[in-house]
Amino acid sequence: MASILRHCRVVLVRTQFPGNIGATARAMRNFGLTELTLVAPECDPLDTNARQMSTQGEAILHQARITSSLKEAIADCVIVVGTSARVGGLFRKQPVASPEEILPDVARMLASGQKAALVFGPERNGLTNEETTLCHRLIQIPTAEEYTSLNLALSVGICLYLLHRSSIKTPTVDEPTESLATWQEQDHMFRQLQPALERIRFLFGDRATALMHAMRHLLGKARLTRMEVKLLHGLARQIQWFADQHE
Amino acid sequence: MASILRHCRVVLVRTQFPGNIGATARAMRNFGLTELTLVAPECDPLDTNARQMSTQGEAILHQARITSSLKEAIADCVIVVGTSARVGGLFRKQPVASPEEILPDVARMLASGQKAALVFGPERNGLTNEETTLCHRLIQIPTAEEYTSLNLALSVGICLYLLHRSSIKTPTVDEPTESLATWQEQDHMFRQLQPALERIRFLFGDRATALMHAMRHLLGKARLTRMEVKLLHGLARQIQWFADQHE
Repeated sequence: MASILRHCRVVLVRTQFPGNIGATARAMRNFGLTELTLVAPECDPLDTNARQMSTQGEAILHQARITSSLKEAIADCVIVVGTSARVGGLFRKQPVASPEEILPDVARMLASGQKAALVFGPERNGLTNEETTLCHRLIQIPTAEEYTSLNLALSVGICLYLLHRSSIKTPTVDEPTESLATWQEQDHMFRQLQPALERIRFLFGDRATALMHAMRHLLGKARLTRMEVKLLHGLARQIQWFADQHE
Repeated sequence: MASILRHCRVVLVRTQFPGNIGATARAMRNFGLTELTLVAPECDPLDTNARQMSTQGEAILHQARITSSLKEAIADCVIVVGTSARVGGLFRKQPVASPEEILPDVARMLASGQKAALVFGPERNGLTNEETTLCHRLIQIPTAEEYTSLNLALSVGICLYLLHRSSIKTPTVDEPTESLATWQEQDHMFRQLQPALERIRFLFGDRATALMHAMRHLLGKARLTRMEVKLLHGLARQIQWFADQHE
């Protein structure tokens, strides 16, 4: 029986050490995942060390897709979960949750045949703020306070283990599922919404980026359906129309 | 605030790859553990690769204790948990459970200041049957059926993560704790019990090893107190006395 986790893509962004790509492939095989996407990798994913660490996951390395941007890697996914070691600055208010709070939801969506992505940043600095903005949800893996930096392959392994555990408890759903918007459809809407919000000076000055970020996350958490995305599209158009009338 | 996990020792048995020892040290530091014991390591724990993988856990590598046998490594622990990829043959009936079933118990014991050990076997074959017999409980980490062999460092990392999560939910206990028997005290009792059981032919022929194994596990699961160990000691003596009288 194929695991529902086959609908889940692992996305590694600008990975620096081939051993981590290899160990990720092995863990994917351990937990029934097959789709690996590498965004602008900074090492050779077929390097000896990567292949050694992948063991029986080596086929996953060979089939890995390489893209130049995170957007391309997640465009067709309805739920995109990023991982974050530490959240600060402008983005402090971005919702960050434990894997146990987020992954059961992801498992439910996978069980209904939806496409999900788990996104992991580079070893040294993690995902950029721009990249975390593209994610619907952010996971922070709890550690001891003294040393919070987990090995990349261990972060992947812990998330896949917990997702696997959640998936066992999640029955496959046959009932008609609500039609969720893909990342690309949502992004298209956000790109309409942002200038509308700027136009009415909701987004203005120093805090504009942080506010738009917060909006994206707030809506991202809602897991928008296609209908809801259309609705927000309508809102953006309506704001522009209103501004046209009154400026 | 020091983590209760400092009372938990990680024991790696006959480890073959230094990178796995290094990655274990890093994960220990991530989750607040400090005591690493290496049983008859088959590689150099201070090799370049081990030190690179350990990052800020390198001090743990330098302080690691090396023993020649598992018995020495666990003698002072009241609860010893082994990990097992696959259980078959004679030992099929040995109780194996998921980490989530066992680790909250371990966290409770750590919170009351008791000493615990998590034991991980060599990369290729895992712990021997003789070694799993020395453990009170056996953990099997669930995976997809197609490929069950997890990387050693990932197995350690998943267990430590789950133990850390359990420990957060476990308040430190100040109430007087029952005085649990150490592994050594229990072992001493088992070494009295076994000949007693052999003498009355409870242990006999082909199945003797498996039966004694089952006994150890059954009693191991009970988390024996010192008093209970004395009681079983008494039983062993009583059996011998009875046999002396009737043979």
